[in-house]
Amino acid sequence: MSVPILSFDRVIDGLISMRKPHLSNYLAMYSSWYGGIITDPALMMVPLDDHIVHRGDGIFEVFKCRDWNIYALDRHLDRMRRSMETFYLTLPVDEQRLVEIIRATVRAGNHGTCIVRLFVSRGPGSFSANPYETVGAQLYVIVIAQEPVAPEKYEKGVKLITSAIPIKLDYFATMKNCNYLPNVLMKKEAADLGAGFSVSLDEKGFLAEGPTENVGIVSKRGELLIPRFSHTLRGITVNRAMELARSLSGAELTAASEADITPEQAYDASEILVFGTFFNILPVVEYDGNRIGDGRPGPVFKLLLKLLAEDEAQNPRMLTPVIP
Amino acid sequence: MSVPILSFDRVIDGLISMRKPHLSNYLAMYSSWYGGIITDPALMMVPLDDHIVHRGDGIFEVFKCRDWNIYALDRHLDRMRRSMETFYLTLPVDEQRLVEIIRATVRAGNHGTCIVRLFVSRGPGSFSANPYETVGAQLYVIVIAQEPVAPEKYEKGVKLITSAIPIKLDYFATMKNCNYLPNVLMKKEAADLGAGFSVSLDEKGFLAEGPTENVGIVSKRGELLIPRFSHTLRGITVNRAMELARSLSGAELTAASEADITPEQAYDASEILVFGTFFNILPVVEYDGNRIGDGRPGPVFKLLLKLLAEDEAQNPRMLTPVIP
Repeated sequence: MSVPILSFDRVIDGLISMRKPHLSNYLAMYSSWYGGIITDPALMMVPLDDHIVHRGDGIFEVFKCRDWNIYALDRHLDRMRRSMETFYLTLPVDEQRLVEIIRATVRAGNHGTCIVRLFVSRGPGSFSANPYETVGAQLYVIVIAQEPVAPEKYEKGVKLITSAIPIKLDYFATMKNCNYLPNVLMKKEAADLGAGFSVSLDEKGFLAEGPTENVGIVSKRGELLIPRFSHTLRGITVNRAMELARSLSGAELTAASEADITPEQAYDASEILVFGTFFNILPVVEYDGNRIGDGRPGPVFKLLLKLLAEDEAQNPRMLTPVIP
Repeated sequence: MSVPILSFDRVIDGLISMRKPHLSNYLAMYSSWYGGIITDPALMMVPLDDHIVHRGDGIFEVFKCRDWNIYALDRHLDRMRRSMETFYLTLPVDEQRLVEIIRATVRAGNHGTCIVRLFVSRGPGSFSANPYETVGAQLYVIVIAQEPVAPEKYEKGVKLITSAIPIKLDYFATMKNCNYLPNVLMKKEAADLGAGFSVSLDEKGFLAEGPTENVGIVSKRGELLIPRFSHTLRGITVNRAMELARSLSGAELTAASEADITPEQAYDASEILVFGTFFNILPVVEYDGNRIGDGRPGPVFKLLLKLLAEDEAQNPRMLTPVIP
């Protein structure tokens, strides 16, 4: 059977008639390559020669919008700036314009509660690995319908396993870039083993991080401990949760700090927590087959989940309105 | 200034009228997403949600076609298969069909001498890192006009530096995947320091590899030595060059083998060679500021370059005809 050669019009007809169910989640996309915002998911494409495609040469951020307010946007843009500096990437627009683009793209998506993913790529212009061989950095912002987290994850808790995938080199782990194959393998590993989440260990055997989450434990002495950020990505959610935890009186927690944590310490913890942008916090009730605490979501989980929910619903210092 | 919202037709009009000079190098592309071959470079795009874009979750191969014969295709496809197995990727077509697609795409490009780049991606379907959350793997094959290598690189030689970028973890270095940020940083480093090429060291301080090249030395005792493949990508060109070297009588070379090589040994070598698909072999005349040999391209370089040129011009076992 010969390989069909498609005319320009036939490709466009194919895109117009594309009816893939997953595309309905994609609400709007800004592309600097197109020079504006589009709402047709079939056109949400990037040039094959953009170095983000063939080299993973780009960085990203993911943040959420709730009732037309973006949560923690400044913090995400701070981290974006640090990631870009590490890899010598530049924005094709200034930062004020970037915020304008993000807000306009969310508005175009027409859903007040959504997820925003932002990519800064090295740009198209060649298929080499050489970052100088491009026509310039590109910005892609996509707004996606937020699927609700299954309530039973909060009510019954989730399972965690220790990952067998070697941890990334520090300077890759600590920056949010598009070289995520170790994380991909960790996600696969957790799915294959019937666990919701996995956590890698650093070279000394201390807990590091999940593929797209941070972890923490509550010790029997009431300390909230999280792995040191020298080996892990500084998650916006875990960071904010630690700030909120530190603002509590001593009744709920005796401390909230970074620490070296062994798996054995975690097995023995009263609670283990997983932190992430989509779900905020989930309670781990089983880790490597060991029951954690009494096998049910614990009080620190419930308290921090409530504090984060309040923070994202009504803390004006953490919210950026999308509608002028 | 508001952010423009583009209609479907306006995006298409923009693509039709796109006049970027670099696009003229792109001759033809097969896309499993489109279901065929296209020749309009402006349409050579991939879905933003393909995990190859946002996670680097894909593998690639690069090979060359010369006078309508693809060189070392079987070897490239062998390596592709190994890379895919490591990352649990599958081809969306069987291998016989893959070869048919590659040949048809080269023919559609209408240039008998060209470069072929092949990508197998995890596929679109979500923006998560989870490899199960896609609608299926995709295949992209692009045929690119081969720009000639500047003759002076062969005649005068090139400069090499030792890279300061930490080497990748072995299982990433030895498979050709789209997580190439360390390689990108090495390319940048070499360009910034005015060197043509850079070579990383492994954790024991032995020579490893260039960002997209292999290296080797010819010792004063006439041995051709290359770094061990346990830490580096098994380059098709260096591999073939070693086979050709081993078939020589003892007059030209006393040995051809993998070895632990320190930078000091390399400074003291009679020749240093760089191996790569595009240029086959280049002679290094300066490494970390040290003159190599007599500062001119040496006899082993010239001999191996000639053997490789003959191999790709007329060795039927290494050539796959594109025209039926």
